Amino acid sequence: MKGLVYGGPGKIELKEIPVPTIEKPTDALVRVLKTTICGTDLGILHGKTPTCKPGTTLGHEGVGVIETVGDGVRNFKKGDHVIISCITSDGTCEYCKKQMYSHCEDGGWILGHLINGTQAEYVRIPHADNSLHLVPAKSDQEALVMLSDILPTGHEIGVQNGQVKPGDTIAIVGAGPVGMAALMTSLFYSPAKIYMIDLDENRLKLAKELGATDTINSGDEDAVKKILSETKDGVDVAIEAVGMPATFDVCQKIIRPGGHIAIVGVHGKSVDFQLQNLWIQNITLTTGLVNTNTTPMLLKTVSSKKIDPNKLITHHFKLDEIEKAYEVFGNASAEKAMKVIIEP
Amino acid sequence: MKGLVYGGPGKIELKEIPVPTIEKPTDALVRVLKTTICGTDLGILHGKTPTCKPGTTLGHEGVGVIETVGDGVRNFKKGDHVIISCITSDGTCEYCKKQMYSHCEDGGWILGHLINGTQAEYVRIPHADNSLHLVPAKSDQEALVMLSDILPTGHEIGVQNGQVKPGDTIAIVGAGPVGMAALMTSLFYSPAKIYMIDLDENRLKLAKELGATDTINSGDEDAVKKILSETKDGVDVAIEAVGMPATFDVCQKIIRPGGHIAIVGVHGKSVDFQLQNLWIQNITLTTGLVNTNTTPMLLKTVSSKKIDPNKLITHHFKLDEIEKAYEVFGNASAEKAMKVIIEP
Repeated sequence: MKGLVYGGPGKIELKEIPVPTIEKPTDALVRVLKTTICGTDLGILHGKTPTCKPGTTLGHEGVGVIETVGDGVRNFKKGDHVIISCITSDGTCEYCKKQMYSHCEDGGWILGHLINGTQAEYVRIPHADNSLHLVPAKSDQEALVMLSDILPTGHEIGVQNGQVKPGDTIAIVGAGPVGMAALMTSLFYSPAKIYMIDLDENRLKLAKELGATDTINSGDEDAVKKILSETKDGVDVAIEAVGMPATFDVCQKIIRPGGHIAIVGVHGKSVDFQLQNLWIQNITLTTGLVNTNTTPMLLKTVSSKKIDPNKLITHHFKLDEIEKAYEVFGNASAEKAMKVIIEP
Repeated sequence: MKGLVYGGPGKIELKEIPVPTIEKPTDALVRVLKTTICGTDLGILHGKTPTCKPGTTLGHEGVGVIETVGDGVRNFKKGDHVIISCITSDGTCEYCKKQMYSHCEDGGWILGHLINGTQAEYVRIPHADNSLHLVPAKSDQEALVMLSDILPTGHEIGVQNGQVKPGDTIAIVGAGPVGMAALMTSLFYSPAKIYMIDLDENRLKLAKELGATDTINSGDEDAVKKILSETKDGVDVAIEAVGMPATFDVCQKIIRPGGHIAIVGVHGKSVDFQLQNLWIQNITLTTGLVNTNTTPMLLKTVSSKKIDPNKLITHHFKLDEIEKAYEVFGNASAEKAMKVIIEP
């Protein structure tokens, strides 16, 4: 079969690799129908994830059909259509029992990182009973790919951790796929005002269509100054969806007393945290890798068209074109790319 | 009357000042029976609080007797014994309605900071109905002084914000009065293991008596290394009760996935926050000034002798000796001082 293999910093190659097999009784083998590329995959490509070894097939998102299951799999059978969760979890360890699947002692984010991933014709999914979600065969597959990672990440780590409430004023810093997922899922909780902050006018335009009440192009104006002048004491919730010291800094400067900063971005550096100002402000700051424990709930909102993740899909490629897809996604602003769908 | 007046950085003087009067209908005039000195008062003395102007009488803790009340005071009358809360609150603004009294729009921490405080024979208390707590005349006055600030601060900002739960492993960094208050009130929630970390052997000895299961003298051994070697992945809750970059750093290095860092210390500098390690750890970090909304609950635990704050009282002075009391409290380690009681 074909799969996209990481070859070390700066190197990826679509090549012929063996079809994976069932290794443990709790494994399932899934034929991939649709997959996508995540910012984290670009991070691996750029050498930011040394834990990912050359030779690994990338990708941790996708929908597919069960090809075979191990003897220990109880909830799935050949032919079932499934969403592949970006988080693998055994469901039985101390962290799983707290619904912290992200820290599963025999899982977590391993797919396309520590084990071979979904950017291939087939993928082996360990602990299939807890790491796949059954969907009807006739579902909108492309929308469901957004449930592997970005929708639960935006929802759990952004909106739920930030405790968005009816009437709140919130700010989302970064209008990439996860920032957009936070925007879409924040609407469940009826905030009064949603600022979306980014440098890309095209993304801000989409944010407006998706429900942002206010957009700020931080290349054109000072987001901190604008928000502090337009709100009483800042925002109730600031969702950081970029992962840079500068975007963290915006969040710590716009948060009101009693507010919540939800860190969703993947940070590569430490940040200068202004505790001399914030110790007295009664703020809450959260971080986290997605647990995917809200995926079943989000599946219902997608199925009932309460949210439409198709609006985030800008490009389509065949698996044969995946190297080109990485180029387009890696140059997202110029290419006006948000999420790209790849079909084996 | 006599009162301790701040004279600018490095200067305090006990001098003759006018007895305060009722300025607004919601004021009460309280005759001070017992007061104390807080680390924050030392901060003012050392010029760290430029918002406190020379000429201000210091002190924000104490118990007393109502001398007179304004026409608008409904809940107190002459002769009532009261705890003076360190936080003044009108009970009606947006923040008060969220029980965020610390951010009251006509109050907050103003006593001995923006208005004259309790280190005097009499003190004017604005918004008396919401800023005083009635106690029986025959109460243990010295224990009640600990309810003005340190017990609610340790409880609300340390223990409650940190979400200490039965069975948890917790660490308290800093065995000063507020760290000790966090220790005493953490016992309400039955943690399994309590590490107390400090440089002062005398304080660590007291911490053991008050319920710490483990003490670490961080001058003698590496607290981070010890805790990481003795726990599964670190502690469930780390309470930072010092306010320095180094103590913050201990907390961020010992926190386990899903854990809570509760910042109680008053920070004067920014800190290097290791988001490159912590973004993925699903931690929650909180900051805050005390709201004193748990003072009535804490009063019941003191009255019923569930906790005994007298154990924190090491020295007694008359108001005439208050300058000496500042010297002793400012040199706490050598003087083996924890809380000092001052009697007008």
